[in-house]
Amino acid sequence: MAATVEIIVVGNEILQGDVLDTNSHWLCAQLTALGAVVRQVTQVRDDCPAIAEALRLALRRGNRLIILTGGLGPTADDLTLEAVAQALGVSLQEHTQALAWVAEMYRRLAQEGRVPSAEMTPQRIKMARLPAGCEPLFNAVGAAPGVLCQLVGQAVVCLPGVPAELKNIFQEALLPWLAEWLGQGAFVEWTAVAACNDESVLAPLLKRAAEAHPEVYIKSRARAFGESYGRFTITLSARGETPARAEALVRSAWEDLSASLDRAGLNAWLEVPAGGP
Amino acid sequence: MAATVEIIVVGNEILQGDVLDTNSHWLCAQLTALGAVVRQVTQVRDDCPAIAEALRLALRRGNRLIILTGGLGPTADDLTLEAVAQALGVSLQEHTQALAWVAEMYRRLAQEGRVPSAEMTPQRIKMARLPAGCEPLFNAVGAAPGVLCQLVGQAVVCLPGVPAELKNIFQEALLPWLAEWLGQGAFVEWTAVAACNDESVLAPLLKRAAEAHPEVYIKSRARAFGESYGRFTITLSARGETPARAEALVRSAWEDLSASLDRAGLNAWLEVPAGGP
Repeated sequence: MAATVEIIVVGNEILQGDVLDTNSHWLCAQLTALGAVVRQVTQVRDDCPAIAEALRLALRRGNRLIILTGGLGPTADDLTLEAVAQALGVSLQEHTQALAWVAEMYRRLAQEGRVPSAEMTPQRIKMARLPAGCEPLFNAVGAAPGVLCQLVGQAVVCLPGVPAELKNIFQEALLPWLAEWLGQGAFVEWTAVAACNDESVLAPLLKRAAEAHPEVYIKSRARAFGESYGRFTITLSARGETPARAEALVRSAWEDLSASLDRAGLNAWLEVPAGGP
Repeated sequence: MAATVEIIVVGNEILQGDVLDTNSHWLCAQLTALGAVVRQVTQVRDDCPAIAEALRLALRRGNRLIILTGGLGPTADDLTLEAVAQALGVSLQEHTQALAWVAEMYRRLAQEGRVPSAEMTPQRIKMARLPAGCEPLFNAVGAAPGVLCQLVGQAVVCLPGVPAELKNIFQEALLPWLAEWLGQGAFVEWTAVAACNDESVLAPLLKRAAEAHPEVYIKSRARAFGESYGRFTITLSARGETPARAEALVRSAWEDLSASLDRAGLNAWLEVPAGGP
């Protein structure tokens, strides 16, 4: 049984259509490749009650992991940690290690003349005030540390909204713990192409293959008519304890499906046999 | 008081990181320009209970409009209309007008030799089975009609996940009704650049300006250190009954803010004076 994950994306700029959220897309690919199932992505505004409520609901849905992105910075509308503290029913406390990291980052930036001074202003200290009981995650490319809150059987992770910082913390500070926390698991997806552009003709064949192989998720990718005249994309994906297990499931589903496409006079071939990104 | 909107995006391919959702980004920009506030975007899997629950919660939050994207096609995992019917407590019924549109589209595609036959298979008829009481929205570039469900003071709209189809229905079939439904309103956003790359220095000045101009949303855009050395982006946005009203609010906030940046020895200038896309 794969671990389930939800992602909460914070920022008015996203809900105003100013900025396209690519962080959750990147995280979805990473987490899926680790064998987890991302159940939901929720984008909310810079609004403390809205962030806290989204987190409460995600925790209530019993997810193993909830990742929040954005709202960790020094400005007054960076509210993620305050909202997490509210949702978890704890207070914000200055964290010694986090404070040391933030101070060190500004010392370096001041030395390099990239900020006017290394002084620890209230705004900079704010980034080191974490929900009680949480630990900071080292940010090698920015000031705001990530945050990890381990609860009973569930965990909450906060990452900055700046993509370079989010990716650095995820890969350097989080990944070793994450692989263990999400447990063993592998995800394999094959993409096939069928020489047919009418989904309603494929539908009954896909349905039969899906019923015969309940562990394999079979999906045809909708496209605008004409956009892909004569071609249709079908993905077959499965999870297993090992990549070999997952691949065996996908392979046998593909063998059945391609045979039935063949009988229906439709040419089909595998395009990208790949196990996630 | 601006009308609030939520968007629900349906599709495993998004939560697996296979496909980047650009539909909600496009819709957020359109709706914001119409003077509405997009409160939340929720991405869920091809899972009927999950879609229905997301819609129930969005309705309970009292939004004026909820738009669902994706899951309107002919395949067995296109579940959006079934989920909407469940959430609204109604049944799915063949809609005469929708059925005529779907049949006409396949007649045309068959004539052009782009589908093998015009026969109305169960999969094609499925796209014309709407939640009782809803009306179809004409889709000029694809088979699946959009769907409009008007409730008391709230409305639910379903659009296909194929971007070309979603945009066509939104602009051709939905926009006239939508502008009226969301009511009068305008949104203006100005972008300024400050010659400073340390957000924690700007933070107190932005906070004071925001407190003096509660109707204006002032936000500094976080960037990785160095990425934009010496420059920082500040956005000022406001809503008003008319563009002129909204612009007057933004202008007076900018005049205060630029004066205080000036006093702090920071150069700042307007970059894009624009009223939404």
